[in-house]
Amino acid sequence: MKKLINDPTNVVQEMLDGFAAAHPQHVRLLEGLNVVVRKDSPVKGKVALVSGGGSGHEPAHAGYVGAGMLDAACAGDVFTSPNVEQILAAIRHVSGGAGVFLIIKNYTGDVLNFEMAMELAGDEGITVDRIIVNDDVSVEESARTAGRRGIAGTVFIHKIAGARAEAGGSLDEVKASAELALKNLRSMGMAISPCTVPAMGKPTFTLPDGEMEIGMGIHGEPGIKRTKIMSAGQVTEILMGGITADLPLRKGDEVALMTNGLGATPVMELYIMHREAVSLLQAKGVKVCASYVGEFMTSLEMSGCSLTVLRLNEELKTLLSAPSRTPAFVQV
Amino acid sequence: MKKLINDPTNVVQEMLDGFAAAHPQHVRLLEGLNVVVRKDSPVKGKVALVSGGGSGHEPAHAGYVGAGMLDAACAGDVFTSPNVEQILAAIRHVSGGAGVFLIIKNYTGDVLNFEMAMELAGDEGITVDRIIVNDDVSVEESARTAGRRGIAGTVFIHKIAGARAEAGGSLDEVKASAELALKNLRSMGMAISPCTVPAMGKPTFTLPDGEMEIGMGIHGEPGIKRTKIMSAGQVTEILMGGITADLPLRKGDEVALMTNGLGATPVMELYIMHREAVSLLQAKGVKVCASYVGEFMTSLEMSGCSLTVLRLNEELKTLLSAPSRTPAFVQV
Repeated sequence: MKKLINDPTNVVQEMLDGFAAAHPQHVRLLEGLNVVVRKDSPVKGKVALVSGGGSGHEPAHAGYVGAGMLDAACAGDVFTSPNVEQILAAIRHVSGGAGVFLIIKNYTGDVLNFEMAMELAGDEGITVDRIIVNDDVSVEESARTAGRRGIAGTVFIHKIAGARAEAGGSLDEVKASAELALKNLRSMGMAISPCTVPAMGKPTFTLPDGEMEIGMGIHGEPGIKRTKIMSAGQVTEILMGGITADLPLRKGDEVALMTNGLGATPVMELYIMHREAVSLLQAKGVKVCASYVGEFMTSLEMSGCSLTVLRLNEELKTLLSAPSRTPAFVQV
Repeated sequence: MKKLINDPTNVVQEMLDGFAAAHPQHVRLLEGLNVVVRKDSPVKGKVALVSGGGSGHEPAHAGYVGAGMLDAACAGDVFTSPNVEQILAAIRHVSGGAGVFLIIKNYTGDVLNFEMAMELAGDEGITVDRIIVNDDVSVEESARTAGRRGIAGTVFIHKIAGARAEAGGSLDEVKASAELALKNLRSMGMAISPCTVPAMGKPTFTLPDGEMEIGMGIHGEPGIKRTKIMSAGQVTEILMGGITADLPLRKGDEVALMTNGLGATPVMELYIMHREAVSLLQAKGVKVCASYVGEFMTSLEMSGCSLTVLRLNEELKTLLSAPSRTPAFVQV
């Protein structure tokens, strides 16, 4: 295993220490809990947003903590849900009196633990609501999931809900905006090489030379098919085909487009993929109003990428373009 | 070769097409030249900044074109200097009457072509000056370089010179700030796996299982030694040792610290490295005023990282923290 780490069992704490040391203007850590909170939390009178999940997907989710996005991110072990104690501590800490909204990726462990923490916080008198993000069109069921998985599109939910909360929206309004975004959100990914969980020491799966896997999950969960390596144009057609089969786009529609690298894909290749995706959308008469290209939700050093389309209306366009100041998502 | 590309001989143009499609609010392309310019260029009365180099180091340098940083970036083929025609076209295009400043990484081909373009632009009556960035302390000579190489620290030169130019500095003042920064700038890197230039189809070098190379260049040029894979703490000590041997830091000094991924290193590992680097500096009584963690100057899908230290005084601190709005470097 070739990794720049110290103790494989301590990667999450050490990463979060480095993260907090790097971004003191945005965040701080809740001691001993692997929870990253907005530096100025709790923000009185604002709906507070809490997300999180297994580690190994950086910059998700801690990179999205800050003004205009999340109030807290709970980091589980690598590819493992955060526990109820962490989530409950995050909810208690960020609660500013206007309610707390949880953004949960649809994995069985995450849903279980976030919902349990929601119930316990409710018993303490904190009003909590939630959305379960399931943007991945690849598969309907998977090893870790009942229903579709949540992947990189989750970052758009952080942004949309975060902007609505920052603008003074109520808990119901924040939830309504998040649900509107989710209804218009689809993603699909693929991998060309695996990743290694530090504590395991060996790759999560193998992909023979010259092969790729379409629809692979961000923990290496099986996709829909293995094929010979294809061109960027062919791969984009398959991913965008999956997305638009489920979210029909019409001439004149406006969208935001994210081309997300899984960890080891060169920035150069992400832009080549993005070019293909923009060109497919333009050919349908769809206007790409906002582009995001880079690493937003990774899988350690997995090589591959995902595409995410968010269909916009005026409300979503306004919320998406609102300012945000977080370690991994600065918008002016 | 497992890459998300179409035609290996056309990767640079396709990447730049994707880049321009993604960031129309910041940049546009000079047709047929692989030159990215600031959207509102030429900016009348402002010193214009031009940089560039071989492709494969994305987001360098096109990602730094925009308000507060570069006016143009010239993209050569992968790991190949841009040619004189490109650089001259960039100079002509961005010249706003206050002079043009070139930021050149110290590689023989780059220096030759940028200086030739400078001379030709001078013949046309455009005042041009330049800085040659050689922040890499690893080696004094190398396959592509006389003297030290220019690596990730170049991004701090873009930022410092860009802020001075944006604030209305003259060509001499922009150069003076850039030289002040360079005097206080040192970097050192290492690799744990190689990269493949698309048109070559095979890795630029090999590194046996369980080995890493200290001081490797961003084109895979030899470093100073190969060793067994070490912990993040040990690697950081070696890199920071090389940096501080050349740039002695004293108690009370203030620095900016960049932990830069070379392409395939997980964000998690970069933060673990950053933690070690911050802790070594703090142990010396040095204050880290600003942190940058991520991919700033890559080597395609090479795995590894570099550390960069910029020692700050009041002038440099002000310029570094000034706002910038570019595809890969947004500061508020």
